[in-house]
Amino acid sequence: MSLKRLTPGPRMSQAVCIGNVAFLAGQVPDDLAADITEQTRQVLGKLDKVVEELGATKADIASVQVWLSDMADFQGMNAVWDEWVSRDAPPARATGGVALARPGMRVEMIAVVALPDES
Amino acid sequence: MSLKRLTPGPRMSQAVCIGNVAFLAGQVPDDLAADITEQTRQVLGKLDKVVEELGATKADIASVQVWLSDMADFQGMNAVWDEWVSRDAPPARATGGVALARPGMRVEMIAVVALPDES
Amino acid sequence: MSLKRLTPGPRMSQAVCIGNVAFLAGQVPDDLAADITEQTRQVLGKLDKVVEELGATKADIASVQVWLSDMADFQGMNAVWDEWVSRDAPPARATGGVALARPGMRVEMIAVVALPDES
Repeated sequence: MSLKRLTPGPRMSQAVCIGNVAFLAGQVPDDLAADITEQTRQVLGKLDKVVEELGATKADIASVQVWLSDMADFQGMNAVWDEWVSRDAPPARATGGVALARPGMRVEMIAVVALPDES
Repeated sequence: MSLKRLTPGPRMSQAVCIGNVAFLAGQVPDDLAADITEQTRQVLGKLDKVVEELGATKADIASVQVWLSDMADFQGMNAVWDEWVSRDAPPARATGGVALARPGMRVEMIAVVALPDES
Repeated sequence: MSLKRLTPGPRMSQAVCIGNVAFLAGQVPDDLAADITEQTRQVLGKLDKVVEELGATKADIASVQVWLSDMADFQGMNAVWDEWVSRDAPPARATGGVALARPGMRVEMIAVVALPDES
């Protein structure tokens, strides 16, 4: 089977689809000097963009793992999440404190998304 | 595509299904003063309940990520897990030490479950 | 539904398949005295073996979570990963710092793999 890939690079793809299920790479913020509010906005913005490139919508996000480098940022992340999330179609979610790849990186999100049509 | 959701709330759903694959929210204990034995029982009890609400059984659990706030609890968690798990149909599993959302929370589990019929 | 399982043991299976999607157990190194280079090779070797036992190939790996006990090993893990990964068919990936199950264990990987034919 040839899997559909979004933005394959030399190390990883931004998303890989098995049938109508897309597994996304960890989405990370660009500005590592920003606070949790801004970093969460950047990560959710990137997630929205990948979802759109997959031809899906926010309501198609099935699950998200949220990794925070410091669980003291839990409420700050949630405040942005709660504004962003679809009230009609919220994903399953789990949040844990995990060391992240670069200094200053405060949040990373890993999502599974449903595609509109199986291919 | 409209995804099936179990117990959607303002922040997340307890489970979201893509076809016959259900992605569950992180299951957490209620009693944060309890030891790892009791907290593991509570988490597995909640997992059993969500699985039942999905119309599935313990043998339909495909994978579980186990997050422990202190890896010193690994053996304590395993003792309860080993009593609970289906010997005929054990899930894939990975266990890691992750900071959890609330003080006193010692264990969280994230599962993927097969549904009886695709819908 | 009866799920296909690879190497079921008393505690977990090495992989559990829902249709044509296989969820793998965390793959860990054997030699806990080895450095990150050798441990990463061992983990990727085990991943290759499970993938082969599933009847799949490296290009069928959809996503990998990489857990490192010390994010200082990020570059060392990446050096081995970059030699290993399929340039034509890279998986989605996320890497985080997570405490691992045994002292000396530096890397664990959790993968989702597409099977050639649904069964």
